[in-house]
Amino acid sequence: MDDKTPNPQASGPDYRELLISSSESVAKGGWQISGTQITPDCPHPWTVQMERLKGGKQQGVDLITLNNGEIECRICPTRGMGLIDAWRGPVRLGWDSPVGEIVHPSFVNLESRGGLGWLEGFNEWVVRCGLESAGAPGRDRFITNQGDEAEMNLTLHGKIANIPASEVEILVQCAPPYRIRVIGRVFEWMLFGPKLELRTEVWTTPGSNILHLEDTVTNRGSHNQEFQLIYHCNHGTPLLEDGARFLAPVQRVFPINPHAARKVDRYDLFEAARTGFVEEVYCLEPIGDSEGKTTVMLRNHKGNRAAAMRYRVSELPCLTLWKNTAAEEDGYVAGLEPGTGFPYNRSIERRFGRVPILAGGESRSFRIDFLLLDSTSEVDETARLISAVQKGRKTQIDHSPPDLG
Amino acid sequence: MDDKTPNPQASGPDYRELLISSSESVAKGGWQISGTQITPDCPHPWTVQMERLKGGKQQGVDLITLNNGEIECRICPTRGMGLIDAWRGPVRLGWDSPVGEIVHPSFVNLESRGGLGWLEGFNEWVVRCGLESAGAPGRDRFITNQGDEAEMNLTLHGKIANIPASEVEILVQCAPPYRIRVIGRVFEWMLFGPKLELRTEVWTTPGSNILHLEDTVTNRGSHNQEFQLIYHCNHGTPLLEDGARFLAPVQRVFPINPHAARKVDRYDLFEAARTGFVEEVYCLEPIGDSEGKTTVMLRNHKGNRAAAMRYRVSELPCLTLWKNTAAEEDGYVAGLEPGTGFPYNRSIERRFGRVPILAGGESRSFRIDFLLLDSTSEVDETARLISAVQKGRKTQIDHSPPDLG
Amino acid sequence: MDDKTPNPQASGPDYRELLISSSESVAKGGWQISGTQITPDCPHPWTVQMERLKGGKQQGVDLITLNNGEIECRICPTRGMGLIDAWRGPVRLGWDSPVGEIVHPSFVNLESRGGLGWLEGFNEWVVRCGLESAGAPGRDRFITNQGDEAEMNLTLHGKIANIPASEVEILVQCAPPYRIRVIGRVFEWMLFGPKLELRTEVWTTPGSNILHLEDTVTNRGSHNQEFQLIYHCNHGTPLLEDGARFLAPVQRVFPINPHAARKVDRYDLFEAARTGFVEEVYCLEPIGDSEGKTTVMLRNHKGNRAAAMRYRVSELPCLTLWKNTAAEEDGYVAGLEPGTGFPYNRSIERRFGRVPILAGGESRSFRIDFLLLDSTSEVDETARLISAVQKGRKTQIDHSPPDLG
Repeated sequence: MDDKTPNPQASGPDYRELLISSSESVAKGGWQISGTQITPDCPHPWTVQMERLKGGKQQGVDLITLNNGEIECRICPTRGMGLIDAWRGPVRLGWDSPVGEIVHPSFVNLESRGGLGWLEGFNEWVVRCGLESAGAPGRDRFITNQGDEAEMNLTLHGKIANIPASEVEILVQCAPPYRIRVIGRVFEWMLFGPKLELRTEVWTTPGSNILHLEDTVTNRGSHNQEFQLIYHCNHGTPLLEDGARFLAPVQRVFPINPHAARKVDRYDLFEAARTGFVEEVYCLEPIGDSEGKTTVMLRNHKGNRAAAMRYRVSELPCLTLWKNTAAEEDGYVAGLEPGTGFPYNRSIERRFGRVPILAGGESRSFRIDFLLLDSTSEVDETARLISAVQKGRKTQIDHSPPDLG
Repeated sequence: MDDKTPNPQASGPDYRELLISSSESVAKGGWQISGTQITPDCPHPWTVQMERLKGGKQQGVDLITLNNGEIECRICPTRGMGLIDAWRGPVRLGWDSPVGEIVHPSFVNLESRGGLGWLEGFNEWVVRCGLESAGAPGRDRFITNQGDEAEMNLTLHGKIANIPASEVEILVQCAPPYRIRVIGRVFEWMLFGPKLELRTEVWTTPGSNILHLEDTVTNRGSHNQEFQLIYHCNHGTPLLEDGARFLAPVQRVFPINPHAARKVDRYDLFEAARTGFVEEVYCLEPIGDSEGKTTVMLRNHKGNRAAAMRYRVSELPCLTLWKNTAAEEDGYVAGLEPGTGFPYNRSIERRFGRVPILAGGESRSFRIDFLLLDSTSEVDETARLISAVQKGRKTQIDHSPPDLG
Repeated sequence: MDDKTPNPQASGPDYRELLISSSESVAKGGWQISGTQITPDCPHPWTVQMERLKGGKQQGVDLITLNNGEIECRICPTRGMGLIDAWRGPVRLGWDSPVGEIVHPSFVNLESRGGLGWLEGFNEWVVRCGLESAGAPGRDRFITNQGDEAEMNLTLHGKIANIPASEVEILVQCAPPYRIRVIGRVFEWMLFGPKLELRTEVWTTPGSNILHLEDTVTNRGSHNQEFQLIYHCNHGTPLLEDGARFLAPVQRVFPINPHAARKVDRYDLFEAARTGFVEEVYCLEPIGDSEGKTTVMLRNHKGNRAAAMRYRVSELPCLTLWKNTAAEEDGYVAGLEPGTGFPYNRSIERRFGRVPILAGGESRSFRIDFLLLDSTSEVDETARLISAVQKGRKTQIDHSPPDLG
C-alpha cells in the first residue's frame, strides 16, 4: 500500500498488519499485538490494539491504542487519523471537551449552525484542520463544474477530521530500535473539487517519550490546488492550569481580533478556568534554529511537566495560540496550532499569501515531534533550547489586530 | 450510570441490564428478558427485548419493545429515546407516517429543504422537539465562540430526536409491584454551544394500562442556557377518525395563523381524512387540578377508546393541538403536544417569554402519564375528570392569531 | 414483496432470495448463488453475489455482483440501486472517478458546497438523478406544511442516488431462458413532501450481452407530485478515447450554455484527456423508430467496441450529452443521459414544460436496454440501425443556447 514502506530485506523483516483497507475491503473489528509476540528481545513491553467502539455517537468508530512502554497514544482512523490523546504517567496531552464521545463522522453535519457543525465532534488532542480549507467559516470563491468562479460557504476547519481513513496499516521493525508505525491514508476527493490525499504516519520506538508525526499531502488531481493545514493541538488539565506558560522562540505576535488585543502582553500566560471567559487567540511567527526547527512548549505552573512540539518553520510557518480557559464543563483548553496559515477565513488568508498551492501530482510533507516531559530537568532542558534559539532577540508584539481591509 | 437508581438493598434486589453505553463501549445487538425469568411470582407475563433493525434507512437502528402484559410499547434509543408506538389490544397510540421506516439519524440531514429535513425521519408516536430549540425553522440569534451575537438558521424541531442515546439500561423491581424501567441518556453537547443532557425514564408495572414518562433536562455547562421542549404526541387511525374529539380543561385557545383561525370554533373536533387538507394548529392553555395536573384526551367517535395524558401544567404550560387530517397516504394524524412553549420559531417564543433558561448545572423535570383507555367506562371516567377540572368555566377562544409584530 | 413477480406456477418454479428488507428486518451481509446450484441445465455459468464492503467511506455498503457468463455488472443497493459498472471482456461500462470508493450515503452531505455535495459520492456507471428534483442546484419553489409556496435550495441531482434500497430480492427463472432478476425498491418519502417510490429491476439472461433496466416511479401520496428522472450513464476509458464518437438518430441539438456553443458542430466527437478541459454539455432530442424506440451509442475510435442504449423516446424524450474529457486524474468521462428533462435547474425545466407530474397513486415506467458491443460487426450493425432511424434527415443544430429569460 505504501511506496515509502522500508524494504524488509534492507532493514530486517518488518511485521505488517493491514487493519483497514477500502481497496481490499478490510476492516478488522478487534485486533492486538504485543512486543512479547513480535519483538521478544525488546526490553520495553509495547502493545498496539484496535477496537471498534459502541454506544451513542461512538457506534462503529475504530480506535487504535499504541503503547510503547512509556507513552500511550490513541489514534482514530474513523476521524481522519486524529490523535485523541497521549499519556506519559501523569502527563496528559489532551483535554476534556464537552463532547464526551469519539463521534462518528456520520453524526456530524459540518453545515450545521451556520458552518460550525465541526464543534459537535471536536474533542481530540491533535485534530487536523483542512485540507481544502481550514479556519473560520464564511464565504469564499471556488470554481464550478462549468469553470466559472462562484461563492460557497466554507465550514469551520474543513472536512479532513471527519473523513474516515481508507487505508490503515501497522508496521513494526523486528530489530532494534523496534520502530512502531501507524500509517493511514485519508482522501478528500470529489469530482470538480479537491483531490487531496493525506498520508500520515505516527511512529515511536519502545521506551521513548517522543511521538513522531509525519504527514504528506498530495494533490492527486492535475490542476493547481490550494490547501490549508492547521494542526490543532489541544491541552487541558492537569498541564493547563493557573500559571501554566507557553514558551517558544517567537519573532512576532499579533492578536487575532480586538478582544485578544487587550491581553496581548500576557499572551504566554494561562489563567484558571473561569465561567464566561471568551477565547483569546494570538498569531505567532516562531523562529527556527540552525536547522530551521522550532520548539514550542506548554508547561505547567510548577514547571515539572510539559508538552513540547518540534517542527520545521518552513513547513508550518504560522503558530496559533488558542486560549480558551473557560469553565471546565465548558471546555478548559489551550491550543498550540502550527499551520500553513492562521485560522482566519480562507479568503483573508489568501489575501495575506498564506494559502499554499500544490501543482498536479505535487506533495508537501510535514513533520512534528511531540515530546512528553515529566520532570523539571526535562522541562528546563527544553526551555534552555528555546532560549538558545530566541538568542535574546526581542519578540515584536503588535497591540492591534491586522487591518483586514 | 444513574444517581437515581434505587438502592437494591433498600428496595429489594433489582434486576439491571446495561444495553447501551458509550462510556463502557457496550451495545447489545439482540437481547431479551421475560417475567418468567426475573419475576416468577408476578401474575402478568411481561417481556422486554432489544433488537437491531436491518434494511434500508433502518440499518443499525436499535429498538426496545416493552410489553407489560397489557400494553406493548416500542422505544428507539437510536432516535433519542423516542416512543415509536404503544398498543393496548385494539387501541393504538401512533400513526401511519408516509415515512415507513424507523430512520437512522445518519440518513437525516436536518438542514435539508431549508431546515425541514427532520420530516424525513418523523413517524414516532411521541417525539421530543428540542433541546436547544424546537418549533419552526428560521433565523435566530446565537452566541459565537468569540462571544459575539450572530444569527443562525434553526432547523425544524431541533436535534434531540436524531441523537442516539449514549446510555440505556433496564431496571426491574424483583418484588411487587415489579416496576419495569427503561432509562436512557441523550446528550446534545458541543463546544461553544449547548451542553444539555436528557435523562429519560419510561416505566410501567405489569398489567397496568399506564406508561409513565419521566424526563430530566440538565444544563451540563456553566452558563445560562435556553432550552425548548415539546412532546409531539401523534395519533392516527383507528383512534383518529371522523368525529373523534379532543377533550381537556382549557382556559384559552388561539389559532397559530389565519388559516387555523377560520375553524377555531371547532378546534376540538376531527374530520375524516381528506386530500388537500392543510394543517390547522391551535395553541391551548390547559387548566390544572388542585395538584396542578391537567388531563388531555383524544377520544374516538364512539367514545369507547382514547389516549389520555396527565401532567403538570407548571412543567408544560403550553399545549399545541396539531390537526393534520390529510389523506391517509399523506399522513392522517393529530398531535397533542404539551410543551414549554408553542411551535413558533424560537425568536418569537422568546419574545413571548416562553423560552426557559437553565443556569449552569440546573435541571428541570417533566413527567407525563400516558393512559390507554379501551372501554366506554374508562373514557367516560376520564371525561368526567376533565369536566371537573374545567368546572364549567368558559374557554376563551381567540378568533385571530396573536400579533407577532 | 412485488406485485409483478411472475407466478411461479405459470412460468415454472422461480428461485427467490430476499437480500434486504426493512419491512422484514433482513440484510444479508454476504451471500451468493451460482447457476450450477440453481439451473444445472443452463449452459452459461452465471453467479450472483452480495457482499458488504469495508474500509473508509465504503464501510457498510452492500454490493451485488451479477455475472451472466458474458457480462459482469455491479449494483449497489446502498446507493439507490445505482449501477457501478459492467464489463464484457475488455469492454467496460463505467469510468474512473476521482472518488475512489463506493461511498456510503451517510458520508454524503448533499447540502455541502452550496448544494454540490452529491459530487463527493459520484462514481457510478449509471446513477439516477431525481426523484423530487434533478439537475443543477439552485432556488426553486415548494409547498410548505402550511400549504404556502416557499423557496428552497435544490441540491445537485436530488436524493435518490443516496438513499439505500429498502427491499431487494433476487429472482431466477429455473427453466430457459433462465432470466436472472435483481429487484429493488427505494423510497424518497417524507411528511409534507414527496412520497415517491422507485421500483427497479435489472435483468438479463445467461450468456446475453444485454442488461435490461426496468424502473417504475410511483407517487404514493394523494397529491399531484412533480418528479424528474435522468439516467446519468457515464463512460471512461477504454471506450472513451481520442476519436471516440457518439451516434444516435437526432432531430435537434442545442448547447446548454455559451461555452458549449462554441463546439456544438463537433458535439458527437470526443477528444483525448486534457488538463483544464471545461465540461461541454449538449441537449439532444433523439428520434424513435417505428416502435418509438431510439438507440444511442458511444463507440471507441477504432469502431470495434461500444456501449449502446435502446429506449422509448416517449418515456425519456431528452438526452443530455456530457463531455468531460478532462485529465484522467480529474475524471475523464462522457455521459449519455436519457431523461425526462435536461439538467437545468428545475425552475427552468418547469418553464419549458419538462417536469412531469404524477397524480396520486399514479406510476410511470422507464425501460432501457444496455448493449455491450465488442466487435466491429456488432458496432456496425448498431450504427446501421441508428442510420436507418435517422433516414438521412438532417439534425438541426442550434448554435446558441436557449434564451432562459
